[in-house]
Amino acid sequence: MIQNKAPGKDVSIEDMKEKFPLTAKTDKSHTSFFEIAGISFGGKLIPVMAGPNMVENENLIVETAIQVKKAGAHFLRGGAFKPLTFPYRSEKYTETREEGIKWLGIAKKEAGIGIITEVMEEKYLDMICDVADILQIGSRNMQNYPLITAAAKTDKPLMIKRHYGASLRDWLGAAEYALYEGNRKVILCERGVSVPHTHKDSSRFLLDLQVVPAAKEITHLPIAVDPSHATFWRPWVKPMALASIAAGCDSVMLEVHPDPENSAVDPLQPIDFQDFEHLMIDMNKIANNVNRCVLD
Amino acid sequence: MIQNKAPGKDVSIEDMKEKFPLTAKTDKSHTSFFEIAGISFGGKLIPVMAGPNMVENENLIVETAIQVKKAGAHFLRGGAFKPLTFPYRSEKYTETREEGIKWLGIAKKEAGIGIITEVMEEKYLDMICDVADILQIGSRNMQNYPLITAAAKTDKPLMIKRHYGASLRDWLGAAEYALYEGNRKVILCERGVSVPHTHKDSSRFLLDLQVVPAAKEITHLPIAVDPSHATFWRPWVKPMALASIAAGCDSVMLEVHPDPENSAVDPLQPIDFQDFEHLMIDMNKIANNVNRCVLD
Amino acid sequence: MIQNKAPGKDVSIEDMKEKFPLTAKTDKSHTSFFEIAGISFGGKLIPVMAGPNMVENENLIVETAIQVKKAGAHFLRGGAFKPLTFPYRSEKYTETREEGIKWLGIAKKEAGIGIITEVMEEKYLDMICDVADILQIGSRNMQNYPLITAAAKTDKPLMIKRHYGASLRDWLGAAEYALYEGNRKVILCERGVSVPHTHKDSSRFLLDLQVVPAAKEITHLPIAVDPSHATFWRPWVKPMALASIAAGCDSVMLEVHPDPENSAVDPLQPIDFQDFEHLMIDMNKIANNVNRCVLD
Amino acid sequence: MIQNKAPGKDVSIEDMKEKFPLTAKTDKSHTSFFEIAGISFGGKLIPVMAGPNMVENENLIVETAIQVKKAGAHFLRGGAFKPLTFPYRSEKYTETREEGIKWLGIAKKEAGIGIITEVMEEKYLDMICDVADILQIGSRNMQNYPLITAAAKTDKPLMIKRHYGASLRDWLGAAEYALYEGNRKVILCERGVSVPHTHKDSSRFLLDLQVVPAAKEITHLPIAVDPSHATFWRPWVKPMALASIAAGCDSVMLEVHPDPENSAVDPLQPIDFQDFEHLMIDMNKIANNVNRCVLD
Repeated sequence: MIQNKAPGKDVSIEDMKEKFPLTAKTDKSHTSFFEIAGISFGGKLIPVMAGPNMVENENLIVETAIQVKKAGAHFLRGGAFKPLTFPYRSEKYTETREEGIKWLGIAKKEAGIGIITEVMEEKYLDMICDVADILQIGSRNMQNYPLITAAAKTDKPLMIKRHYGASLRDWLGAAEYALYEGNRKVILCERGVSVPHTHKDSSRFLLDLQVVPAAKEITHLPIAVDPSHATFWRPWVKPMALASIAAGCDSVMLEVHPDPENSAVDPLQPIDFQDFEHLMIDMNKIANNVNRCVLD
Repeated sequence: MIQNKAPGKDVSIEDMKEKFPLTAKTDKSHTSFFEIAGISFGGKLIPVMAGPNMVENENLIVETAIQVKKAGAHFLRGGAFKPLTFPYRSEKYTETREEGIKWLGIAKKEAGIGIITEVMEEKYLDMICDVADILQIGSRNMQNYPLITAAAKTDKPLMIKRHYGASLRDWLGAAEYALYEGNRKVILCERGVSVPHTHKDSSRFLLDLQVVPAAKEITHLPIAVDPSHATFWRPWVKPMALASIAAGCDSVMLEVHPDPENSAVDPLQPIDFQDFEHLMIDMNKIANNVNRCVLD
Repeated sequence: MIQNKAPGKDVSIEDMKEKFPLTAKTDKSHTSFFEIAGISFGGKLIPVMAGPNMVENENLIVETAIQVKKAGAHFLRGGAFKPLTFPYRSEKYTETREEGIKWLGIAKKEAGIGIITEVMEEKYLDMICDVADILQIGSRNMQNYPLITAAAKTDKPLMIKRHYGASLRDWLGAAEYALYEGNRKVILCERGVSVPHTHKDSSRFLLDLQVVPAAKEITHLPIAVDPSHATFWRPWVKPMALASIAAGCDSVMLEVHPDPENSAVDPLQPIDFQDFEHLMIDMNKIANNVNRCVLD
Repeated sequence: MIQNKAPGKDVSIEDMKEKFPLTAKTDKSHTSFFEIAGISFGGKLIPVMAGPNMVENENLIVETAIQVKKAGAHFLRGGAFKPLTFPYRSEKYTETREEGIKWLGIAKKEAGIGIITEVMEEKYLDMICDVADILQIGSRNMQNYPLITAAAKTDKPLMIKRHYGASLRDWLGAAEYALYEGNRKVILCERGVSVPHTHKDSSRFLLDLQVVPAAKEITHLPIAVDPSHATFWRPWVKPMALASIAAGCDSVMLEVHPDPENSAVDPLQPIDFQDFEHLMIDMNKIANNVNRCVLD
């Protein structure tokens, strides 16, 4: 009857500081502050990353880049590589891979906006680094430590999305792998956890906003929130985006698509350009009330 | 291999309307609007219910009533009957029961504020109804249908807290029992769900803010949020209270205590009078940004 | 940053002994052993409780009593009072209440078998105690402490089913309320927990068999398992019943119905008389391999 | 209000057959049967894989190979590459990597036993394939689809452990990636899911035995169970191993160590040689009662 000594149970802050010395705060006021492509993270600004789930074609990504930039977005998001639950791809729903990365490069120039995109394999890192300003580690690769290590070594800023089954401890452990390589520009992104009780009738994941104050109490890294992937449902994106900012997040990622209902993936979750433009204004108002801003 | 027809799995909105005809919306714009003790629910105002976890003694509850009223609260909360996980009571941690209800009555008169308090047994309903403006069904009694039925029959307004293991469907089912008795003044209150992945290092429950837009899509009833019981940790109450309002809730319940660290129960979660006063102002600002208000 | 001292997190065995002195083991070999209606619990025998979900009518319950007794069952189970998620009752799906209890009394005499049935309200306790040998506290009332207290005071043996959202600690707390009243014949029954990740395509609950060794490490009370309500699916009842015994449970509850597909409730989960007879033999073989028995 | 049409919710068996045509059963009796290193999977035999968590040194792994083989184990398990939550390694707790794989090769020859070991990166596949009979995809890499694809292409048999946050659908999706490459020797291994309600006082994971009949209803692939990693606690390994076999699993993986308390990792979970020898005999008895065997 000594199992209450088992490791792996609750871990104290002290233990976290020992296990995650680089991710843990050194004192209560310790906060990371850094710039990526001229945009500051961890300060008064709450940078917004917006764009489609998948880089479907050149026109779509260039048009979206121009429109979200106009509405005030700080980065264009879009995946050319995607971890899909099935090995099968429909004609519409196809990773555009090398070509998609090239189109992101064109959009970057045309719109003058920074790029965040997902990496899944070490072998494509060089190619992606030519275009991306932030490398995204997707939730399904959150515990792919060799990938995180390789990505961190490129010295590009990283954003690590939380796995939907990961504890706060697991998530901070993933960040520690990146910081351990000397890369200091690491952003953590909450995107919904799987829960037993709740939106079974409507959604797969529950956006965990309580993790925002919880994580910020322990780590100095900026905490982003992605309400689109968690809610999986367009009408809930706005309330949860506003709530993310009221809860104290440091960045917001949103899925924006020129024609949401015809999105190649997850057509129920993106918002269109007009809704995005209005949401930016509404988020900025909430941000102002917690001494932050979304629009410069 | 026909188990995919099993009931109890995901339920469609159509099915909900059949199972919960009184709780379900009739159309998208259907919203309950009613007054309790002169305070409107379901409209522009977001009424705030504040006070200690337990009605510890007369002085404490009268003082708190006066202070929270002064800061703008619309109802005084406080439990004289409490479902505790253990049958044992320390000298400090004792339900004050009949006496506690009497003190709530005194506080009501002294401060001129409405009262919400928990009911646990049918036999005390009459006594409690003499004082209470809203009867609270606690989360542990959310599926005690005979109690809900008896409470609903008194025609007093009810607030039904969600069990930490209850789905949205379970929760709306409990409301249907109340509406079925002809009682139309029913408020639903989210107070945290138990989750596998998250705050094991810091909290027992996760405040489910995504349930606010999810519930409001289906039901016309007002949705309250109690961030104090979910977070269980004073520093997170403010960010989660602000996020609750940004997410679109219709009422907020907060634990406020004159001397939080000496609260008879859960001393890590209440905020003091000064923090409450500031929080009311901050909540009002966020409310104004979503076309609502907290302060009249 | 002292929230890691918050109560309500993991509790050590030592703490459990303090909070649950009557439910906790005094030493490693401490095990409750008692008889109910001539059947021993906590010893070599693994008593089986079998019967329909609802006491639908006199014929059904008398026939089932005779058949399950013949196959070796030790108790007849059947509910005359049921906590249903909705207030509506179809003609078929109706609680038979007082009449159902009367029919259980007839079945008891006809078949010479002990009775276990659910109690939901204090006011029916006397009537139910005239017939029942074991009072069942259903999972939805696991935290209805006034009900548990009233039931325990009758001095009838109790079986407390675990709420699908309850931790081991919550469950043992409910048992402590019963033991606190001086009632020593208390059985705990696992019946599935709600989980995020698993049988979403097929079942609502996950039978938690790991809780059997976990609970038996801490408490001296006998641990029953109900695989019918957890799996919700006939073909899985047998493998999970066998696994329950292999995992070390002290009693098994099974849903048995003369015509499963026409059961008034949950028609996908009961097994018929023939399957029950075979299962008793198979369970007995597994029991023999762990030094227990199901058939005398 | 059409979100109930959202994809990603419950999926029917029909849908699974469309999404996972190679993993899904073609009819009720469809079961994979194949041999690995002369040992049959999917038939009457329930092969046992036993050994230490980490290949700590040559002596340990050779001695363990000899002892588990003598007790009847069919494969030696042991990790030379391990995904650890933190980037830091103590002197004792170090991956032995290339050297560890070499020692596994020596143990294989000395004991005449097949080898299963984890792969984490494509670049080490050739080296590991020289020694391993089964490649293990660890739970943390269950959604690392490029790794699964590369491993499947080697044509070595694969065992895919379920992520502790993965649904049955996610897990079968990972298997489909392997089958899609033409590799037909794929084993699925349950090793515990994270749950909100249960063993918080004692364990991190809950062994999901209900997934055994659930998975076998849908897929023809053999289902293994690893009770050591789920329970994380030596005294529970035996009851859960017996229950796994009673529940119908096709293979068992166990952590066995010559000196459990001095295991380099997770010293609370391995059993020693003597306990393993006895457990093999007990598992065989249970297996015989469900028309299977563990010992040839």
